[in-house]
Amino acid sequence: MGNPTIPDIVIGRLPIYLRALQRMDQSGQQVTSSHELGEMLGISPPQIRKDLSLFGEFGKQGTGYHVQFLASQLQSILHLNQVWDIAIVGAGDVGHALARYQGFRDRGFQVKMIFDNDQNKIGRKIGEFTIQDIAEMAEKIQEAGIRVAMLAVPAAFAQPVTDALVKAGVKAILNYAPIQISAPPDVKVQYIDPALHLQRMSYYLK
Amino acid sequence: MGNPTIPDIVIGRLPIYLRALQRMDQSGQQVTSSHELGEMLGISPPQIRKDLSLFGEFGKQGTGYHVQFLASQLQSILHLNQVWDIAIVGAGDVGHALARYQGFRDRGFQVKMIFDNDQNKIGRKIGEFTIQDIAEMAEKIQEAGIRVAMLAVPAAFAQPVTDALVKAGVKAILNYAPIQISAPPDVKVQYIDPALHLQRMSYYLK
Repeated sequence: MGNPTIPDIVIGRLPIYLRALQRMDQSGQQVTSSHELGEMLGISPPQIRKDLSLFGEFGKQGTGYHVQFLASQLQSILHLNQVWDIAIVGAGDVGHALARYQGFRDRGFQVKMIFDNDQNKIGRKIGEFTIQDIAEMAEKIQEAGIRVAMLAVPAAFAQPVTDALVKAGVKAILNYAPIQISAPPDVKVQYIDPALHLQRMSYYLK
Repeated sequence: MGNPTIPDIVIGRLPIYLRALQRMDQSGQQVTSSHELGEMLGISPPQIRKDLSLFGEFGKQGTGYHVQFLASQLQSILHLNQVWDIAIVGAGDVGHALARYQGFRDRGFQVKMIFDNDQNKIGRKIGEFTIQDIAEMAEKIQEAGIRVAMLAVPAAFAQPVTDALVKAGVKAILNYAPIQISAPPDVKVQYIDPALHLQRMSYYLK
């Protein structure tokens, strides 16, 4: 577990800082400031300085932050100086898109396996991956020591699949099924549900 | 614009309440409480009561909330008593998955058109939709009066496409490109970036 004194909402902002820093680094920028980051991200500069100060002294008054150094520190804090293997459960449209998505590798993750319960899908290929039988999921995940899963199954299957993933040792689940799932406190769950985001915006539409 | 005294973070929780209430309704449940909702959603009951009280008196002490009534009130607050048309930009894997996703219609949205700049994709079908030329995007969106867009283009295209969408009258953008975009204050932007969620969880992985 991370340092219990750091609120999860702060942890949630670190990947946002990291993404901005990596983009600066890619474009050759060497130094930034909490003001520049703040403007770019819509987060107040004092908030950024306060968040970062919880983890150490990364910048100097007047000279700002060294982009590459701060990025590598954030990667280390977020345990991204290694690559985490991912299992995908559900080989529908979302599972397909996730299995083929090229953007994970640079950011600390790689898809390793994908499972489905549909006999018509099992054995078929998605890019380099062969869709495997969900009946073998627990064993395969345990064997490979996988700790991270992405859940792209219909809502009705989300909880039983979660229970099986937890039993197999998974500690982080990104859930694409539009339903809240329960997991033990040592298992982190995050959600992706595009309709929730759309509904949050429609409030502001006339 | 919505009532300016309501913090956006509260607005962000309303769709989560709505999703839970609709699931209860589907399973025939008629009454709920802030305690039950809180337990289900990992949000404190006083927070839920406080959020809802900002919009009116929806429950009674001791008898709780009427599921269907509260759901319909939240739909009305979030402007979901109409169906909002959506334009998708980008017909890659993510755009495909979004165009085929069946879960929007029940939640107040429907995909109406999809655009790409790839001559090999333009004219091809995704389900009922024909991929249209991005060169015609502004005109088509204006003609149809579309206010909501989902952006599923590579990062490098996200800002110019956003600018074009804003010009065409779009007021809500759900951005799947892994990059922060700028839009005028009257245009809402929400982000979906699975790597951000994964990185937030890897902090807690040993």
